[in-house]
Amino acid sequence: MNYPSGINRAFKGQTKYSNRGMSLEDDINYTNEYYLQNDIAVIYKKPTPITIVNVDYHSRKDAVITKAYFKTPSTTDYNGIYKSRYIDFEAKETKSLTSFPIANIHRHQIKHLNKVYNHGGIAFLIIRFSKLEETFLITYDTLQKYLDSYNKKSISLAYIKENGYPLSTKYNPRLDYLSIIDKIYF
Amino acid sequence: MNYPSGINRAFKGQTKYSNRGMSLEDDINYTNEYYLQNDIAVIYKKPTPITIVNVDYHSRKDAVITKAYFKTPSTTDYNGIYKSRYIDFEAKETKSLTSFPIANIHRHQIKHLNKVYNHGGIAFLIIRFSKLEETFLITYDTLQKYLDSYNKKSISLAYIKENGYPLSTKYNPRLDYLSIIDKIYF
Repeated sequence: MNYPSGINRAFKGQTKYSNRGMSLEDDINYTNEYYLQNDIAVIYKKPTPITIVNVDYHSRKDAVITKAYFKTPSTTDYNGIYKSRYIDFEAKETKSLTSFPIANIHRHQIKHLNKVYNHGGIAFLIIRFSKLEETFLITYDTLQKYLDSYNKKSISLAYIKENGYPLSTKYNPRLDYLSIIDKIYF
Repeated sequence: MNYPSGINRAFKGQTKYSNRGMSLEDDINYTNEYYLQNDIAVIYKKPTPITIVNVDYHSRKDAVITKAYFKTPSTTDYNGIYKSRYIDFEAKETKSLTSFPIANIHRHQIKHLNKVYNHGGIAFLIIRFSKLEETFLITYDTLQKYLDSYNKKSISLAYIKENGYPLSTKYNPRLDYLSIIDKIYF
């Protein structure tokens, strides 16, 4: 479901150099490409789930989808393998300056991360405060403790700063989230 | 790219009871659903990768894709986690009575399985001889040995029978491929 807002984002001016008009999704895709090329990890973004309503095909190779809808994803956007471990995460941006709205993550995505965690996988969120140009990694474990302890609609930036891990944007890899995973899990 | 042929298949008559008009993809999806509901594993089919050319949207919630193409997948169709291990596989059907054509698997899908294997994941193929109603699991390891040893365009059914594992179709779970994974890896 990121596609429509992604299009809008592309038309908006980006002024600060460090962000260079890149969305969090772009940063992660470039990073995953770097991990793949350097044989560090095999992590991909899943294709956008859609419901196909109509397909025209003159030949089998020449199919054109002429009607389809975006579907609510049942899992997270990213998964793969790193150092023999199953990795699964969701990445979200917020324009808020003070907190991350929990509604930004679908309920079944949290449920999915919970299942991954229970089956022994490494599950986490990457959250970017786009106006502050600050990005954090927060483990599913921490997220779950927060959700169990507080009945709030958002997680404050202060809480994320205290319980998450800052991720800086570099040239290459752009967003080295596996360096944080190394610190926590290996 | 399974969608166009999938549509064709749906219109073809199925006579034998054991197959009940189900494609291999259906069998695996039902099986994964069973694994998920019974908290055995978290394995999903990835959405069909498409290239979106045109989207009409009156409102942000009401987007309609009006032009898109099927894209060649860069990875396999299925991945997930089982007993803390990363699982990755591709499933293919063939109408041949004697051998499985290697061209049925994209070259980059084999490369992907190779990477998964090298990073410590469990990588395999599920191959169905649809006219024979016989289904087999063959590990990436075995596939790679075959590709390294023989310069052939297909793998004979006899070789698959000798080096793979037969998978029978049951009521529920329909195609219990994790029981084979248990035997090989756990």
